[in-house]
Amino acid sequence: MRVAILAHERFPDRAKTALGVLRYADHDVVAVLDRSNAGRRVSDFVPDVQDARIVASMADIEPDAVDALLIGIAPIGGDFDETWRDDVRTALEYGCDVISGLHYFLGEDDEFARLAADHDCELRDVRKPPDDLTVSEGVAGDGDAEVILTVGTDCSVGKMTTTMELARAARESGYDAAVIPTGQTGILIEDWGIPIDRVIGDFAAGAVESMILERGADHDYLFVEGQGSIVHPAYSAVTCGILHGSMADRLVLCHEAGREAIHGYESFALPTIPTYVDLYERLAEPVAASRVVAGALNTAGLEDPAARQAVDDYADSLDAPATDVLRFGTDAVLEALIR
Amino acid sequence: MRVAILAHERFPDRAKTALGVLRYADHDVVAVLDRSNAGRRVSDFVPDVQDARIVASMADIEPDAVDALLIGIAPIGGDFDETWRDDVRTALEYGCDVISGLHYFLGEDDEFARLAADHDCELRDVRKPPDDLTVSEGVAGDGDAEVILTVGTDCSVGKMTTTMELARAARESGYDAAVIPTGQTGILIEDWGIPIDRVIGDFAAGAVESMILERGADHDYLFVEGQGSIVHPAYSAVTCGILHGSMADRLVLCHEAGREAIHGYESFALPTIPTYVDLYERLAEPVAASRVVAGALNTAGLEDPAARQAVDDYADSLDAPATDVLRFGTDAVLEALIR
Repeated sequence: MRVAILAHERFPDRAKTALGVLRYADHDVVAVLDRSNAGRRVSDFVPDVQDARIVASMADIEPDAVDALLIGIAPIGGDFDETWRDDVRTALEYGCDVISGLHYFLGEDDEFARLAADHDCELRDVRKPPDDLTVSEGVAGDGDAEVILTVGTDCSVGKMTTTMELARAARESGYDAAVIPTGQTGILIEDWGIPIDRVIGDFAAGAVESMILERGADHDYLFVEGQGSIVHPAYSAVTCGILHGSMADRLVLCHEAGREAIHGYESFALPTIPTYVDLYERLAEPVAASRVVAGALNTAGLEDPAARQAVDDYADSLDAPATDVLRFGTDAVLEALIR
Repeated sequence: MRVAILAHERFPDRAKTALGVLRYADHDVVAVLDRSNAGRRVSDFVPDVQDARIVASMADIEPDAVDALLIGIAPIGGDFDETWRDDVRTALEYGCDVISGLHYFLGEDDEFARLAADHDCELRDVRKPPDDLTVSEGVAGDGDAEVILTVGTDCSVGKMTTTMELARAARESGYDAAVIPTGQTGILIEDWGIPIDRVIGDFAAGAVESMILERGADHDYLFVEGQGSIVHPAYSAVTCGILHGSMADRLVLCHEAGREAIHGYESFALPTIPTYVDLYERLAEPVAASRVVAGALNTAGLEDPAARQAVDDYADSLDAPATDVLRFGTDAVLEALIR
């Protein structure tokens, strides 16, 4: 699929979804829309991802050169920015599908709905869960596929990135591995998945189970994208639903070097790493014997050799192999996950 | 409020919601609708709750004798039974509000919506969460009110009943206590609350927090109705959201005597009681220092003196006072909760 990615005035640092798609999706990215960086290239900012030109608007792309427009940024609150309307309108007039993870559902926008119908294209709001979800039956662990779940000490510590890097590395090593996306960026990258944070509590575990049953029949290893943290004051419900719904065989504990308190909830100190390991394993145990067998540390805020030392210390505190998947690769942990 | 309770062919044993309202609600119950027991009285079946006559249909009640019809039963799946349509229609023609905890929303039924508008009365679907929910700010513990949460070893072990009995006993002892309802029966009893099992995962803790902030300003003790179990294969997400969202000071662990496996998930054995205590306290700790200080055991399946012995054994396993709130009252545990 040939896609354009909308990231106006936020590329690259505040365009997590756009970067995730550039880094991991199979899509052919024909351009990034960022009116503040028009004329430059992705590689001018980010060297290690798929390159593409940066243009000011959808109108700068040839109608027959693109199949879909992805909304690659998520403003606080997930609202639709009206300055994007022309780009979405143009995309639909081109006959492009428009794929969005915003809370604001494009499919419920009268003008967009009409244009999509007129031009026979699709408005896909990936933040909207399917209507046919139900409760878990507690059978995700019955399949043959090995289930590996990323869990975290907090939000935004690298669970999605770790999941994608591990699955890619497993495939490159010749294993049949698939990703189970549970959040909007993962869903936009994989072009499939369920946003568990938008699913009602009763169906959270069931939604994860349904994805594992669907993919587990076709793959040997499933890498499940985790969300939040089991001790997060606001988001622990989502984390717990994914932990029990996935009935994971193995867990990868993700953490950001130096983080000491819950992001945005600074009065809540993070427990120690051994406490997290103990808590995730004890909580999982009555449903599935999940074990923390590896760690992923985000060391983006550190220089070498401090980063190397931080990863070594993290591995010691986990009593398991660890790495920074972007900085040091996955070799140190893959063997513990794939066996 | 003068209410009629619909419980056709299920009263009393399969009418949990109707019994809860008869036992705990302030409503004046003018009649129970059960066509299979018409002509008898509630007291013929259940001695220790508010008495009322049992009639075959809404038409058997005087139009000016009733203010609302409550749907007091919940069939598997929560669908609306078309044999109830005449009763709902009659209630609306009487000018009665109709209050329902079904998954099927009466407000979206064209005929009912039209009748409600014509007769200026309200269709209240309590299973539908409010639209203005948001994420938790982690401040439920900042108020002056003491927060007491019932937690369980499984679903249907007596969390709602225990919550109601403890709050009533606290009030009778002169304390200013309120209930925070999180499920449909509690909401129908209190005529207020949010069904946390229907709230999206991101807002589960926030919805509980919002109720605690609203009631906490006016009361000294808040008894929060818990849901599910923290190790339930399907419903643990809801349990976890309530645990962290409530930031409870004290927990009451509810259990049913003799239950050894998750109800409906028999392949999942229940952990030991000390394991539950440890897990609930460790999981709560990073957000709030919640402690299991009492236990509630449902001994309905036992005769005396086995019931007494079971409660004593349960207290020993908890290392805390315990009771069966319906069989032995709340004196043994109230002091540990109210201080």
